Amino acid sequence: MEGVDHLADERNKAQFDVSDMKIVWAGSRHAYELSDRISRLVASDPVFKKDNVSTLGRKELFKNTLKKAAHAWKRINELGLNEEEALKLRTFMDQPSFTDLHWGMFVPAIKGQGTDEQQQQWLPLANKMQIIGCYAQTELGHGSNVQGLETTATFDHKTDEFVLNSPTLTSSKWWPGGLGKISTHAVVYARLIIDDKDYGVHGFIAQLRSLNDHLPLPGITIGDIGMKFGSAAYNSMDNGVLRFDHVRIPRNQMLMRVSQVTREGKYVHSSVPRQLVYGTMVYVRQIIVFDASVALSRAVCIATRYSAVRRQFGSQNGSHETQVIDYKTQQARLFPLLASAYAFRFAGEWLKWLYTDVTERLQAKDFSTLPEAHACTAGLKSLTTSVAADGIEECRKLCGGHGYLSSSGLPELFAVYIPACTYEGDNVVLLLQVARYLMKAISQLNSGNKPVGTTAYLGRKEQLMQYRSDVVRAEDWLKPSVVVEAFEARAARMSLACAQNLSKFSNPEDGFQELAADLIEAATAHCQLIVVSKFIEKLQQDIPGNGVKQQLQVLCSIYALFLLHKHIGDFLTTGCITPKQGSLANEQLRSLYSQVRPNAIALVDAFNHTDHYLGSILGRYDGNVYPKLYEEAWKDPLNDTVIPDGFHEYVEPLLKQQLRNARL
Amino acid sequence: MEGVDHLADERNKAQFDVSDMKIVWAGSRHAYELSDRISRLVASDPVFKKDNVSTLGRKELFKNTLKKAAHAWKRINELGLNEEEALKLRTFMDQPSFTDLHWGMFVPAIKGQGTDEQQQQWLPLANKMQIIGCYAQTELGHGSNVQGLETTATFDHKTDEFVLNSPTLTSSKWWPGGLGKISTHAVVYARLIIDDKDYGVHGFIAQLRSLNDHLPLPGITIGDIGMKFGSAAYNSMDNGVLRFDHVRIPRNQMLMRVSQVTREGKYVHSSVPRQLVYGTMVYVRQIIVFDASVALSRAVCIATRYSAVRRQFGSQNGSHETQVIDYKTQQARLFPLLASAYAFRFAGEWLKWLYTDVTERLQAKDFSTLPEAHACTAGLKSLTTSVAADGIEECRKLCGGHGYLSSSGLPELFAVYIPACTYEGDNVVLLLQVARYLMKAISQLNSGNKPVGTTAYLGRKEQLMQYRSDVVRAEDWLKPSVVVEAFEARAARMSLACAQNLSKFSNPEDGFQELAADLIEAATAHCQLIVVSKFIEKLQQDIPGNGVKQQLQVLCSIYALFLLHKHIGDFLTTGCITPKQGSLANEQLRSLYSQVRPNAIALVDAFNHTDHYLGSILGRYDGNVYPKLYEEAWKDPLNDTVIPDGFHEYVEPLLKQQLRNARL
Repeated sequence: MEGVDHLADERNKAQFDVSDMKIVWAGSRHAYELSDRISRLVASDPVFKKDNVSTLGRKELFKNTLKKAAHAWKRINELGLNEEEALKLRTFMDQPSFTDLHWGMFVPAIKGQGTDEQQQQWLPLANKMQIIGCYAQTELGHGSNVQGLETTATFDHKTDEFVLNSPTLTSSKWWPGGLGKISTHAVVYARLIIDDKDYGVHGFIAQLRSLNDHLPLPGITIGDIGMKFGSAAYNSMDNGVLRFDHVRIPRNQMLMRVSQVTREGKYVHSSVPRQLVYGTMVYVRQIIVFDASVALSRAVCIATRYSAVRRQFGSQNGSHETQVIDYKTQQARLFPLLASAYAFRFAGEWLKWLYTDVTERLQAKDFSTLPEAHACTAGLKSLTTSVAADGIEECRKLCGGHGYLSSSGLPELFAVYIPACTYEGDNVVLLLQVARYLMKAISQLNSGNKPVGTTAYLGRKEQLMQYRSDVVRAEDWLKPSVVVEAFEARAARMSLACAQNLSKFSNPEDGFQELAADLIEAATAHCQLIVVSKFIEKLQQDIPGNGVKQQLQVLCSIYALFLLHKHIGDFLTTGCITPKQGSLANEQLRSLYSQVRPNAIALVDAFNHTDHYLGSILGRYDGNVYPKLYEEAWKDPLNDTVIPDGFHEYVEPLLKQQLRNARL
Repeated sequence: MEGVDHLADERNKAQFDVSDMKIVWAGSRHAYELSDRISRLVASDPVFKKDNVSTLGRKELFKNTLKKAAHAWKRINELGLNEEEALKLRTFMDQPSFTDLHWGMFVPAIKGQGTDEQQQQWLPLANKMQIIGCYAQTELGHGSNVQGLETTATFDHKTDEFVLNSPTLTSSKWWPGGLGKISTHAVVYARLIIDDKDYGVHGFIAQLRSLNDHLPLPGITIGDIGMKFGSAAYNSMDNGVLRFDHVRIPRNQMLMRVSQVTREGKYVHSSVPRQLVYGTMVYVRQIIVFDASVALSRAVCIATRYSAVRRQFGSQNGSHETQVIDYKTQQARLFPLLASAYAFRFAGEWLKWLYTDVTERLQAKDFSTLPEAHACTAGLKSLTTSVAADGIEECRKLCGGHGYLSSSGLPELFAVYIPACTYEGDNVVLLLQVARYLMKAISQLNSGNKPVGTTAYLGRKEQLMQYRSDVVRAEDWLKPSVVVEAFEARAARMSLACAQNLSKFSNPEDGFQELAADLIEAATAHCQLIVVSKFIEKLQQDIPGNGVKQQLQVLCSIYALFLLHKHIGDFLTTGCITPKQGSLANEQLRSLYSQVRPNAIALVDAFNHTDHYLGSILGRYDGNVYPKLYEEAWKDPLNDTVIPDGFHEYVEPLLKQQLRNARL
C-alpha cells in the first residue's frame, strides 16, 4: 500500500483550487515558495529526522539538538541562505535550540537597544556565531513584573565599570533559553544603581563563559533548570539559572541607545524615543500571532486527516463504519478550530501591516497610534495563543486514544506550544492591559478624544447602545455587516458596563481589582471583534483562485458564529440579540459545517505542511495510518529485547517463587 | 529555613477545623486513617522516591517501575496488608504499572464474567501473582465501538477448542496496559464464531507468554506500542500490541458466567442476567469519578499553595509585592476548581451508594433503575474527567512559568490523567448516551412512565416550563432551592427543546446525528444539575466540626454560581433567569471568593496529600518553594558536567573556527 493515497477520494471532493489556497495561506507566492522549498529541504535531510526524539533521555536529547543546530548552521552557510531562508530552516528543524534565542532575542536586543558603536562591536561576532548569546530577563521570583527584578548593576566610578550582582536567591536569573549550557554571552536585565540611586531596569551585555574552555567566568554560577513539560519538547533547550557574585563589566556594555551613563556616572537620555521599546513588542507579538496560526494549523491538519481515516459505529450490514469526520459532534469541535487557524493567519497578516505602519510613524516621531497598536497586539497575542493551546489539546482528544501516542505528534506539539501563553506577557496580564486601555478610551470619549484604529467603534457609542439585531432568518447571519455590528455592540456594551461599574468605586484601582474578571471578559470580546473584522476585511480584497474566496467566506462565518454561540450569554445579557436570533445562528452554523465537510481535507492540505514538519502518523498526507502506527511501535527501545530489562530481577522471582508454593 | 512553615500565617487564618474537614473529604474516619497511614508509609520508603523519573529514558523508567511494583508486592506481603490497604499502597506509589491492570481489570473480569469453576481455577493463581494478566479489548482500528471488534474466537468441534485469530492489521489488540512486556495472560475480547455464525463479542482467557522463559507462545506476536504523552506518566506502562495467528485455547477458557458454549458447540445463556455487565460499568465509573476529584484536588492544592507563596506587582514603597492569590482574576479561576474538587468528591460518594443500591436490586432481579443508574454514571464520568483534565492544565497556568517545570508536578499530573477522558467510554460518546436516555425519558412522559432517580425532575415538566426565577437580591442566590430550581428548569428546557427539534425529523436517527451538538449541551446541563443537587443534599446531612459545614456551603454556592455564570447563555436562552439576575449571581460569586480566600490553604490541606504524593515543589506543604526549586535544578543529568556532551563535537568547532576568521 506504499505510495497509495488513501485520502484521494477526499481530495477529489474539494470545490476549490488547493494550489491557489496555498498561496493565500502563505501570504504571497514568494512566501509560499520559500516555505515549500525550505521545508522540503529539511524533510529530506536525514540529520533532521525527529521521530525518535521522544524516547531519548535528557542528555541524549540535548546532544541530538546540538548536532542538529550545528548541521543547520552548516547547511545555511553551504547553501548561502539569506536571513529569511535561514530562519525558515531553523523553524522547520522543529526542535527548540539555543540558536532560537541567539537569533530571536540576543541579536535583536542588541540591534534594538544598542548604540551604533555597540552594534558595530557585537553584531559581527554574533552574526558569525563567534559568540552565542541569550536573553536573561526573568528571575526565580520575578516574571511578568519586569520592574520588580532584583539583579543589580552598580556603577563603580573608580573603575568605570558596572558590578552585576544577584543579592538574593529569588534574584537568580531563571528560564532564559540557551543560558544553561551553551551561551557565551547574555543580555542581562538589572536595576541600574548609581550612587545608591535606583534608575530602574536596564539591559547589559555580559560575558558568561570563557571563549577558550567554555567554563563559567569567575563570580558566575550557571546551570540548567531541569526537565519541563513533555518528553522532548523544550527539554532540548538548556533553559538556565544564573547568579552573579559581583561580576564586573565595562561601562560600555550597558545597552545605551535610549539612556546612557557617562564616565562621570551621570544618567542621561538620548534623543531616541523610549517608545521604540513598544515598537519591538509589537514586532515580537505579531510573530507570536503568526506562530499561533501555524501551531493550530498543524494540530487541525492532523485531526482532520485522521478523522477522515478513522471509522467508528454506524456500520450496517457489514459495510464500512462511518468516518468520524461525518459526525456532527466531530465537526462542531473540529471545524471552528480550522476556521480559527485561518482567522488567526489573517489577523497576523494585518498585524504585520500594523507593525510597518507603527514603525513608519515612530520614525516620524508620531506616537499617536502606539498605545492602540500596543493594546491590540497584546490582546491578539493573548487571544490567539490561548485558543491555539486549547485547540491543540482539543485536536488530540478528537483523535481518540491514538492521539495520546507520541507518534500522533500531538502531545509534543502541545508541550512545546503552551509556553506561548506565558512568555512575552502572561495571557491574563495582557488582557488586563487591554481592559485598562479600553477603560481609558471610554473615559476620554466625552473629552472629545476620538478612539482610533481597532477601538474606533467605541466612538459610535450612542448608535451601538441603541443597536438591536434585525436578523430574521438563519441566512441573515451570513451578511458581514450583520455579524460585525453584533460583535461591535456586544464588545462596546461590555466595556461600557465595566466602565459604569468602575465609576462606583471611590478608588479606581480597587474597582479595577474587584472587577478584574468582568474586565477580562470585556477585553476578550474586544479582541474577538478585531479578529472577526480583520477576517471580513480580508474577504473584501481581491482573492484569486477557483472557489477560494467562497471557502474563506464559509470559514469566516463559522469563526464568527461559533464565537457567537460560545459566548451567547454575552450577546443575550447585553441585549444585542434575542434567544431566537441566537438559535438561528446555531442553525446556520450547522449548515456551514456541511459545506466545509467535502472541502475539509483540501483546506488542511492548503497549509502545505510536510510529513516531517507535522511529525504525526495520524496526520500523514497519504492517510496510511494503521500500517505505519504498527510499524512505528516496534521502534520503541522497550522492543529492543523480548524480555525487558529488570524482568529477571523484579518480575521473574515473583512469578517463580510463588509457583513453588502454589497448589495448581 | 528548613523546618519553617512559610504558610503558617495562611493556616492561622482558617475559620474552620481542618482535622474535621479531612474526615469529610476522606468520607469517613476509617477512610481518612487508612489513607493517612498508607500514604505516609509510601512517602517514607526510599524505593518509592519518584522525583527523578522524568529524566529517565524509556528503558530505565520501565525498569524503575518494575522495581517499584515488586517492592510494593513485597511490602504488601510483609505487612500483611488487606485488599483495601494494598490498593491504597499501589495508588500512593503513583506510577502506572502493569499491576494496575492485573488487579484493576484482569482479576475483576474473571470475578465478574467467570463461572464459579473458572474463578476457582484462575483467581488463586492471579491473587498470588503466579500469573499476571491484562485486559485486551481495544484494537488498532476499534475503540469505543466494542461491537466492531474484529478478533475472532472460532469454535473447533473436533478439538473442543477456540481458535483465536487476528484476521486483519486493524484487529491487532492495541493499548492494553501490562500487555507489551509483562503479562503472562490476558482476558481477550473476540467475536465468538460457531459454525460460521457470529455470536458477537465475548471474553476469553488466553495465555500469552511461557511461564518458564517468558517468551511469547507460538502464534502470538506481542510488543510495546511506544511512547505516550509526557516524560514519565504512562511511559512507565507497557501498553501493548498483540496479534493471534490461529492460537488455540481450551473451550473452558471462554468466560462463561452469562453465556456458554457446550461441548457440542451449542450457544446457551445461563440464568445469570446480562445486566450484570452494566453493574460492573457502574462500579468502574464510580471509581473514575472518585479519582477525578483526587486528581483535581492535587492540582488545586499545588496551585493554591503556590499562589499564596508567589508575589507579583502591587509593591508600594519597597514593601512586599501582592500574593497572587489575592488577585480576583486568580481567585475567579482557582476557587471554582477548588469547589469542583469538593463537588466531585460528594458526587463520587453518592455514586458509591448508587452502586450498592443497584447491586442489591440486581440480586433481587430488579432491573428497573439500571438504565437510569447507567446513564447517570456515564454522564458523571464524562463531566468530572473533562473538568479535572482541563482543571489540571488551568492550575498549571495559574502557576505561571514555573508550572511548566516538571518539578511543579503539574505536567506529569496532566499527562497521566488525561487518558481518563478517553478510557472506559469516550467522554463525548458517553454524553450522547446520556442524551439518548433523556430523549427516551421525555418520549415516555406522556405514556405515564414516570422518570426515576436523577431524571425525576423531568416529571415536573409543566411546572419547570412555567418557572421564572424570583431572585431579586444577590444573596437570594445562596438559597439551595433557588439554585436547584434554576438548574432543573434549565436542564429540563434544554432537553425538551431538543426533543421538540428531534420530532421534526422523519428519521429520528438522522435528527439525533444532526442535533448532536445541542444534545450534548443538554446532557451536560443534566449532569451539572446532578452534581449541584448531590452537593446540596450532602449539606442537608449532619456534618460535624467547627465551621466545616459553613465552608462547604460557600464552596457549594461557588460551584453552582460559577456554572451559572459560565453557562449564562443556557439560562438566558431558556428564559429561566433574566440578565439582571445573572449579574446578581456574578456579584454574589465575587463576594463568595472573598469568603474562601482566608480559608483557601486550609481547604487544600484538608485533602491531606503528602509531599511525596503531590510530587510538586510549588505545592510543598511548608511553602519553601524557591530554595527547593533552586536545589532541584542541579539534579538534572545535564548538570552532571559543566561542559555538556556534544559541546566539543558540535558547538566548539563553530565558535573556534569562526574566531580565526574574525576581525575582532
